[in-house]
Amino acid sequence: MSAKGHRDTRPALLAEAFTLPALYYTDPERFHGELEAIHYRSWLCVGRGEELPAEGSYFVRAIGEASMIVLRNGDGQLSAFHNACRHRGTLLCKEEQGCLPGRIQCSYHAWTYDLDGKLLGAPHMDKVEGFREADYPLLRVRTAEWDGHVFINLAEKPIPFQEHLAGLDRKFRPWRMEELRRVERRIYEVKANWKLIIQNYSECLHCPVAHPLFNKFSHYLSGDNEPPGSSYLGGRMDLRDGVKTLTLDGQSNRRCFASLDADDRRRVYYYAVLPNLLLNLHPDYMLTSILWPRAVNRTQVVCEWHFHAGEIARPDFDPKGAIEFWDMTNRQDWELSELAQAGISSRGYRPGPYSHREELLHAFDRWIVQQLGHQEPARE
Amino acid sequence: MSAKGHRDTRPALLAEAFTLPALYYTDPERFHGELEAIHYRSWLCVGRGEELPAEGSYFVRAIGEASMIVLRNGDGQLSAFHNACRHRGTLLCKEEQGCLPGRIQCSYHAWTYDLDGKLLGAPHMDKVEGFREADYPLLRVRTAEWDGHVFINLAEKPIPFQEHLAGLDRKFRPWRMEELRRVERRIYEVKANWKLIIQNYSECLHCPVAHPLFNKFSHYLSGDNEPPGSSYLGGRMDLRDGVKTLTLDGQSNRRCFASLDADDRRRVYYYAVLPNLLLNLHPDYMLTSILWPRAVNRTQVVCEWHFHAGEIARPDFDPKGAIEFWDMTNRQDWELSELAQAGISSRGYRPGPYSHREELLHAFDRWIVQQLGHQEPARE
Amino acid sequence: MSAKGHRDTRPALLAEAFTLPALYYTDPERFHGELEAIHYRSWLCVGRGEELPAEGSYFVRAIGEASMIVLRNGDGQLSAFHNACRHRGTLLCKEEQGCLPGRIQCSYHAWTYDLDGKLLGAPHMDKVEGFREADYPLLRVRTAEWDGHVFINLAEKPIPFQEHLAGLDRKFRPWRMEELRRVERRIYEVKANWKLIIQNYSECLHCPVAHPLFNKFSHYLSGDNEPPGSSYLGGRMDLRDGVKTLTLDGQSNRRCFASLDADDRRRVYYYAVLPNLLLNLHPDYMLTSILWPRAVNRTQVVCEWHFHAGEIARPDFDPKGAIEFWDMTNRQDWELSELAQAGISSRGYRPGPYSHREELLHAFDRWIVQQLGHQEPARE
Repeated sequence: MSAKGHRDTRPALLAEAFTLPALYYTDPERFHGELEAIHYRSWLCVGRGEELPAEGSYFVRAIGEASMIVLRNGDGQLSAFHNACRHRGTLLCKEEQGCLPGRIQCSYHAWTYDLDGKLLGAPHMDKVEGFREADYPLLRVRTAEWDGHVFINLAEKPIPFQEHLAGLDRKFRPWRMEELRRVERRIYEVKANWKLIIQNYSECLHCPVAHPLFNKFSHYLSGDNEPPGSSYLGGRMDLRDGVKTLTLDGQSNRRCFASLDADDRRRVYYYAVLPNLLLNLHPDYMLTSILWPRAVNRTQVVCEWHFHAGEIARPDFDPKGAIEFWDMTNRQDWELSELAQAGISSRGYRPGPYSHREELLHAFDRWIVQQLGHQEPARE
Repeated sequence: MSAKGHRDTRPALLAEAFTLPALYYTDPERFHGELEAIHYRSWLCVGRGEELPAEGSYFVRAIGEASMIVLRNGDGQLSAFHNACRHRGTLLCKEEQGCLPGRIQCSYHAWTYDLDGKLLGAPHMDKVEGFREADYPLLRVRTAEWDGHVFINLAEKPIPFQEHLAGLDRKFRPWRMEELRRVERRIYEVKANWKLIIQNYSECLHCPVAHPLFNKFSHYLSGDNEPPGSSYLGGRMDLRDGVKTLTLDGQSNRRCFASLDADDRRRVYYYAVLPNLLLNLHPDYMLTSILWPRAVNRTQVVCEWHFHAGEIARPDFDPKGAIEFWDMTNRQDWELSELAQAGISSRGYRPGPYSHREELLHAFDRWIVQQLGHQEPARE
Repeated sequence: MSAKGHRDTRPALLAEAFTLPALYYTDPERFHGELEAIHYRSWLCVGRGEELPAEGSYFVRAIGEASMIVLRNGDGQLSAFHNACRHRGTLLCKEEQGCLPGRIQCSYHAWTYDLDGKLLGAPHMDKVEGFREADYPLLRVRTAEWDGHVFINLAEKPIPFQEHLAGLDRKFRPWRMEELRRVERRIYEVKANWKLIIQNYSECLHCPVAHPLFNKFSHYLSGDNEPPGSSYLGGRMDLRDGVKTLTLDGQSNRRCFASLDADDRRRVYYYAVLPNLLLNLHPDYMLTSILWPRAVNRTQVVCEWHFHAGEIARPDFDPKGAIEFWDMTNRQDWELSELAQAGISSRGYRPGPYSHREELLHAFDRWIVQQLGHQEPARE
């Protein structure tokens, strides 16, 4: 379909659709409220199962004030625990990743746990009246896996993971994401609130202005958003004629994923699996971006490029075009998100009107307000 | 007049004149209260008209959480706007200064404004029910100009600028400040509350101790303060015999400003135009210092040296002696202001008694207390 | 006594002995509450008398928001003052140490005090009605000295220093600490709450895990704690057979302190003189560590190694083994304290049970709670 062919077919947005008040982007207390209401209760993507290849493999992830160890136990299953000893609270794993020798031992007083968090030994505690090792396991954090993506949930009683996915697993089954392997990771420190990054991700109106190369490969109005789900926002865009995928030249010698139908070989999918995974599916590779809110005005974004193992094995495999295309596009987006943060933080900011092509942002804002248990905020 | 000739003719100060309690210099909330009560409501000096030479020339200034664009419009007039797009709040101008191509376009979604802030274009907003471009101009900030000094005011209904000047324009007309041109700018980051810098500026009792060269050229008791106005504090000092102006050697090959009378050719004027301009007028040049409070204990000072265009054009023009004299004196003053900040922040600080030569400081303190709507603070 | 000979003879600890809730280690307001209740009211060790060798010698110390000058006056006595001028609050001494020329003069307006804090001169104040120099002495801070250790107290009415020592002076008289001289100072910035450093210091259960060399020279169960006093916690450990003192090789060519009895020549004493002096007495040298809490999660530790003047004078005097032994051990301890800080700051921390070998820590926690006027904190 040529650019000319795109028509603006979405319905008009209600005149009441305005951006959120500044506090949502500038108030440290509001930020902590969001962590409590959202990040400490939701399923968070923390990486890929391939990062935990063997028994004892672990990585550490932090959100807000929480530090968690995610590991593969003796049964080959994923487990996750709060990263604090039950004795005097000492951080157990201080490296970001590594391999544990079948047990987790505190470096302070040698309290020792097995890979399921059970306390095996607590030196000199035998003289403490009533002390029972069974009362001091590591505090467990829920885990789940979806086609290679690993999730954790800090809540006591999280909603079932399948319910959280809300059908995304069936929708994206043909991409066989579990067969993909990471080739590159780039970590960005963005001086913007995490919600601005999701908002930037959820519309392409800015593409002709900010991403001329992107717009050359996929017309910015070709997007077709799915009605927002309870835990995700997303849609798809069409590749222009002659464009094979999103790389620096729009070309690739990689085969499309084998199970994709003809339509999906001409599309790029962009889904925000709330609150922290941005999932970009191309005909021949997957880009994941995991958002780690660090402060009300600062977010770490971990971007990874994943390709099919069969392609990686080919002698002429070259991921550079895909990596550099998105690295460039990311940097353009971070700059815009930082300008938005700066402007919204200024005394001159007033909530402004969304256009009908920003309906996902409005849906996201309402989701945020709902998660926080707020009433719809009045315009400032 | 020789040093011997100076006599201490000022009246005794009341015994009730004590420095302010520590909170005024150490409490971040008090600082924000001052911004609200003073800086967001007063006329602030932001620079010189010569910095905006052509249509579209602009600079950006920030006070507290406010970022403003000051520009010259198509009619050659000054305008100022809050630096945030009316769509999603994005910062419009990210460089500190530059030239706009006849319009202001947001780099995010291309909302476009003319140089008077009128919204000219808002892509894709036509489908939003009830949207009218006329409802979303840039938020305007008041501007004024006085002999080349540019001022802005963030208040909805500021006091008239003429009333703010309170006769200073008539008083300093002979200096013809609009004919002066900037030759040097030096920016200082001072670890002290903005009020300490104004207080340091408003008395010369410290001059024999801290500024021996200054005191050699102008006796520290030669000052004659004007009764404090509603928006300024100031006075003048006499140059000693044989001293032509304040430079490293007290000499200069520059002509005095042509319209000055014989008395003013032998004087240096020091005026604090509250809350942020320190104006030093010498017989042959002007020193301006603009104070930008950045935190309760941190102030940026932008010092500029301005000379008559006719002098700058002369082949033997040499501003170095004037620049280095004040750069040295400034650094001595910043060190003292930083020591005052440190001591006042310490647990051992108690408000102390002003002498009768510090009457401008006492007047300034009362002005601060009044602006904040406080009662006269009790001694701690 | 061989390692085998050590027996665990301490009584079982009550099952109610749990570590403190996280707030005690993470809340900035709690930290300021501790400064108010403890550091601003207790006797604080600030260094050694030898650092003030002559009339006018001074050093500056800071705790929380307080900056103090400690000096030797004309009578050879110690004095201490708040480091702020009584005129406009300016910091008087800006260097950390130095020698004053018989008087303290403010660098701002030359207010001048003698070494006993009396205001000698206040220029231009004579015209201020009712001003009397006698009303503006420097604010005095109490001082005391114990065998060369210098203490100050910021309270209006401190408890008598002898009462604070609670017999420690008699106990440690044989070490003749006043005859020792400092040979080395190392300053550490530790990212941990000050209480974690005292807790780490007050048990040796972690020694076999964290300090293998230490444990090789003194068995970790050889410690014998004294019942905690009202202002100190401490005990002693035995050197293993063949070990002369704590150095890199457990040997030394230094003579033991002459007045020590045979038992104390085979022991190392570790006392926390609350709240800020850690005193380690070896048969042949003294290690002091002064804790300066800088933030709820940050402490500066000033470690000094002191030897007998007679030994220092010997041509083969070599302090290196003692210095490097403790520098290594210190760094191991700081790392553990920082891991404890990180884990306790994490969402997964729960107060955990103390063993019966951690009774000093439990006593310290109760002392803290008592000083703050709190009830025994409930387990979170």
